[in-house]
Amino acid sequence: MSTIPSSPSSSPSRPATAVILAAGRGTRMRSEHPKVMHPLAGRPMLRHLLDNAEQVFDRIVVVIGPGMEEVAALAAPHVAVVQADRLGTAHAALQAQAYFGTGDVAVLYGDNPLITAQTMRDLLACRRLPGVGLALLAMRPANPGRYGRVVTQGDEVVRIVEWADATPDERAIDLCNAGVLCADAHDFRRWLDAVRNDNAQGEYYLGDVVTQAVADGVGVRAVVAAEDELRGINSRAELAVAEASVQQRLRHAAMEKGVTLVAPDTVFLCADTVLAPDVVIHPHVVFGPGVTVERDVEVRSFSHLEGCVVRHGALIGPYARLRPGSDVGAHAHVGNFVELKATTLGEGAKANHLTYLGNAQVGARSNIGAGTITCNYDGVFKHTTIIGEGSFVGSDSILVAPVTLGAGTLTAAGSVITDDVPDDAMAFGRVKQENRAGYARTFRDRLKAAKERG
Amino acid sequence: MSTIPSSPSSSPSRPATAVILAAGRGTRMRSEHPKVMHPLAGRPMLRHLLDNAEQVFDRIVVVIGPGMEEVAALAAPHVAVVQADRLGTAHAALQAQAYFGTGDVAVLYGDNPLITAQTMRDLLACRRLPGVGLALLAMRPANPGRYGRVVTQGDEVVRIVEWADATPDERAIDLCNAGVLCADAHDFRRWLDAVRNDNAQGEYYLGDVVTQAVADGVGVRAVVAAEDELRGINSRAELAVAEASVQQRLRHAAMEKGVTLVAPDTVFLCADTVLAPDVVIHPHVVFGPGVTVERDVEVRSFSHLEGCVVRHGALIGPYARLRPGSDVGAHAHVGNFVELKATTLGEGAKANHLTYLGNAQVGARSNIGAGTITCNYDGVFKHTTIIGEGSFVGSDSILVAPVTLGAGTLTAAGSVITDDVPDDAMAFGRVKQENRAGYARTFRDRLKAAKERG
Amino acid sequence: MSTIPSSPSSSPSRPATAVILAAGRGTRMRSEHPKVMHPLAGRPMLRHLLDNAEQVFDRIVVVIGPGMEEVAALAAPHVAVVQADRLGTAHAALQAQAYFGTGDVAVLYGDNPLITAQTMRDLLACRRLPGVGLALLAMRPANPGRYGRVVTQGDEVVRIVEWADATPDERAIDLCNAGVLCADAHDFRRWLDAVRNDNAQGEYYLGDVVTQAVADGVGVRAVVAAEDELRGINSRAELAVAEASVQQRLRHAAMEKGVTLVAPDTVFLCADTVLAPDVVIHPHVVFGPGVTVERDVEVRSFSHLEGCVVRHGALIGPYARLRPGSDVGAHAHVGNFVELKATTLGEGAKANHLTYLGNAQVGARSNIGAGTITCNYDGVFKHTTIIGEGSFVGSDSILVAPVTLGAGTLTAAGSVITDDVPDDAMAFGRVKQENRAGYARTFRDRLKAAKERG
Repeated sequence: MSTIPSSPSSSPSRPATAVILAAGRGTRMRSEHPKVMHPLAGRPMLRHLLDNAEQVFDRIVVVIGPGMEEVAALAAPHVAVVQADRLGTAHAALQAQAYFGTGDVAVLYGDNPLITAQTMRDLLACRRLPGVGLALLAMRPANPGRYGRVVTQGDEVVRIVEWADATPDERAIDLCNAGVLCADAHDFRRWLDAVRNDNAQGEYYLGDVVTQAVADGVGVRAVVAAEDELRGINSRAELAVAEASVQQRLRHAAMEKGVTLVAPDTVFLCADTVLAPDVVIHPHVVFGPGVTVERDVEVRSFSHLEGCVVRHGALIGPYARLRPGSDVGAHAHVGNFVELKATTLGEGAKANHLTYLGNAQVGARSNIGAGTITCNYDGVFKHTTIIGEGSFVGSDSILVAPVTLGAGTLTAAGSVITDDVPDDAMAFGRVKQENRAGYARTFRDRLKAAKERG
Repeated sequence: MSTIPSSPSSSPSRPATAVILAAGRGTRMRSEHPKVMHPLAGRPMLRHLLDNAEQVFDRIVVVIGPGMEEVAALAAPHVAVVQADRLGTAHAALQAQAYFGTGDVAVLYGDNPLITAQTMRDLLACRRLPGVGLALLAMRPANPGRYGRVVTQGDEVVRIVEWADATPDERAIDLCNAGVLCADAHDFRRWLDAVRNDNAQGEYYLGDVVTQAVADGVGVRAVVAAEDELRGINSRAELAVAEASVQQRLRHAAMEKGVTLVAPDTVFLCADTVLAPDVVIHPHVVFGPGVTVERDVEVRSFSHLEGCVVRHGALIGPYARLRPGSDVGAHAHVGNFVELKATTLGEGAKANHLTYLGNAQVGARSNIGAGTITCNYDGVFKHTTIIGEGSFVGSDSILVAPVTLGAGTLTAAGSVITDDVPDDAMAFGRVKQENRAGYARTFRDRLKAAKERG
Repeated sequence: MSTIPSSPSSSPSRPATAVILAAGRGTRMRSEHPKVMHPLAGRPMLRHLLDNAEQVFDRIVVVIGPGMEEVAALAAPHVAVVQADRLGTAHAALQAQAYFGTGDVAVLYGDNPLITAQTMRDLLACRRLPGVGLALLAMRPANPGRYGRVVTQGDEVVRIVEWADATPDERAIDLCNAGVLCADAHDFRRWLDAVRNDNAQGEYYLGDVVTQAVADGVGVRAVVAAEDELRGINSRAELAVAEASVQQRLRHAAMEKGVTLVAPDTVFLCADTVLAPDVVIHPHVVFGPGVTVERDVEVRSFSHLEGCVVRHGALIGPYARLRPGSDVGAHAHVGNFVELKATTLGEGAKANHLTYLGNAQVGARSNIGAGTITCNYDGVFKHTTIIGEGSFVGSDSILVAPVTLGAGTLTAAGSVITDDVPDDAMAFGRVKQENRAGYARTFRDRLKAAKERG
């Protein structure tokens, strides 16, 4: 096991290529979708791995299976090569050999998406130590179970042994093979060529490269990483475990930054969620991608936020639904059963009850009454509603866009607003009430009679 | 402990009777309802046990306490016999002796509802092994605590010893008695008759039957089952633990089938929930009874589904509430704060915001605007709303049922629709807006003055 | 370690003063708010400590930092003294010496808010044992880590040793110092005066008082309390752990009383939540302060209750939002996406769908249709809506307060009700529908053309 020196002896400008194996069908997922497309924290698991690999490697090649166009699309602009026949991991890696170039090549797995950029850097730096020809990732899992074991002498890896073939002494080793390798491109190609499939499954195994490297007499070293980073995802249950792991990382990072999560286990974040200090998140809140929340905002229970900005001191929820393109102003309130889509709420504006605002701009200090609905969609186009500052939209107002309410306007409760309202005007769009004396009794009597008739 | 041979030597067609003891008041539940009526995964705990017992036994008799008519009703069509005086478990079992018949009798407990049908079969098969006169269920709990211990010699059970009476050596035994017994009807009756109540509590204990059987010289064997199946429910805290256990089983079964549960611990299922592969369930979703969800459906957070079918590719939630009798078509959308009750949504139809549809049939590709409400109830009767395909119901439309909107119809936003709308027609039911210039300012000034006056 | 006799030998009427140190800035919280103001179960953590201390001590003094007016306000009517310079815990305690009086003085910490009143009583009683001059709180944590250790000889504490200074033998001690002390006021003042700051940080440490007391030859004893009570809160992560601990206490207490929590971990309670036996709480429910729920009430998922009373047999939720001042009558129903604010629902009344009722009184057996909204706010004043018993408010009725609907009234669906409705009358406030034949088709054709033009 190597201690990575801070300045590796070989040049850091030497090119580095990552080959990501993503051709597996993931039978145990029981899915019609490629395994690496299944999401973690709202993004395909392959995307997590690509994000980190892009920070470390000069070139990335993804090996996909036939018909996996959606994986190729996700991987773009990186090259995707197709492994037509699934003959094993070494065979898969060989499909990418045209892109190995010179420099170093690391083989990663699309279903092993939690490896951090730092671990990738450590692997590369280890490979570049003097005398090291092959570096691999290893871990010391809480329960080593049936993982292959890494047999070492001092710092040198002398052998990878599969559980089935291991002696009792070897099984007692707690250092386990994670399967991730890094070697010089030229060596890697040669070792891959030499791998044979004379085993029970008739497959070409990438792990045999280690045997080749040892036989070649080059130094082989293991970089130890956290089990959490190296967990593979082969089933929906393992996907759920990985999701929980990602969420724990995100929650702890938020709390470290000064965010209160009243009940962390009930709050779901995305990798890109930005929460300022002194934000308070109550139990049962879900964040989709693209959310920024400023200081002193309180997000109450059962709120759901995606693609929006919430400015300082705002009060959100409970049951607030903020959809993409929304911008909630400082000290504004978004209350229960209120949905905002592509809508701006000005400073101190309030929409507190049973409201849908889509493609709307609400001025500062305006109050949107309960049951207000913007009709922003005509079946084909989306139209804009503009509400001037200091306006008071009466309850159950229907705002038929495109429409503009000036500053300081009022709408009568229950009005349908189809035309613009000038500043300081009040708009009415409802009829006068009439009472019919005794009619409720008559109606009840009729119903009762009908009921009795059956 | 017996290994169950796959073909028991005695005839499997020999009748088998289950006696379920359900007379306990459950004092520690602090409830006015019988203990066995408390629900797990949405159904009374006794129902779980009955479902499994019905797969294994030819006859089921439930022993209830006085005044427990609701338990008898739940047990029907099985016989319920009343134990008038609570004199102990052996006394309770004796109340059912008129129904023992010939064949084998097993005694189960209504507050021990998680025993699987397979374990019941194993118990019965063990009893029918040559030389076995009594079979009992045992477990090896993580923490054996004060459970009675099962003392064995080889495969034979020689004694059940209560914790209080056990020697240190006996307390070191990790095999614990679960109290469930199975014996030949004739033997069982005889042993029950012989049980005495000369103990501190003055009760007739079922456990004494084991002593009788050993004294009789018949073979007594223990079938070991998982602790999880044999946990009793005596308090609300134990009820919560059992619920968690049931939920874990259901969640893992769903994931095995290819369902993604993003955060399994926050999703609540029922025993009869049917989820197809590639269904994705986001955090915080609750399923009531009778739900079927087809392939590639996404159920977003804070959704609540009961008694409904959701067809392939549909998008549900967040905050969707599907109530019994609803059928959501393929690729249809049910959005936030939308409730469906006894309503069919055609293929590709959408109801995305703040809507209540009750007793409605919505045609394919129709769009239901925000704030639409069906008035389906007149105080006595429920009436139907029919919306033809390709219709566009404007926001905040009120559909007063019974009413039919033809295919390709439009309703103006904010309209009250009381009459049928022909195909391709547009319905209006609202008044023209009027603006009163400066009136909003006047209104504000008046309010301000009133405020200043206090 | 002392066993506390039930009748302490010194007089229990001897005055007791608590000094609560609350001046810390809580840097690791990364907050602009004082640490002790961060809430647990909905109340500032200092409030929890004050509530318990008020049960035990005759006088309470809170030591705050400069500019912490909001802490002083929370502590009122107790005295708050300002520690101008943060020179250590002994220095902080000295700021309160003017209030030590005679009798006993205990020093507590505002960021250690889970200590129970019983533990405080035990501490005080221990201090008053004959021969005891100083009593301190200690714990045996699962992981003693780097806590200071309490070195004892028999019952006597002989030394507190910091982890850094401890010998291996001392580090093996599992009794850890919690920092809480109690002594005679006169002694305490003298020992505090003698504390020196000749240490690495140059701070005056309260822990040195123990050294002084031992040197003085008085008896020093430790009272052992649960780790859970003594956990300090220094970061948002520790705040979350404390919150979880408080919630677990509250949930278990509720279950003990006969409340079913289907999924306890998903239900959030307040310290003052009152739940009667046979209340059933489904998964994902949040209680704010001031809620009382009577027998046989079912609270369904995604409900949020604050400051309200729910009477026996009522059915709440899912998605019910009960706000302060609401009173839900026996057997009443509050359904999905319904908000009640300062509203009384009579016995058997129902508001089942998409409704906002604010400042309303609804009579017994009345039915509030889907989409009903009370316009209770004119921008300055709140007005009242009264609905007589046995009324039927049609769907999407807008009730413009102040307004009174008599008993047995009806409103037509979609009506705006601005005037009172006499008993048994029916109110209409909507226009007659008109259909325009073929207009929907024309509209679609126009849209299509517009779309094609781009």
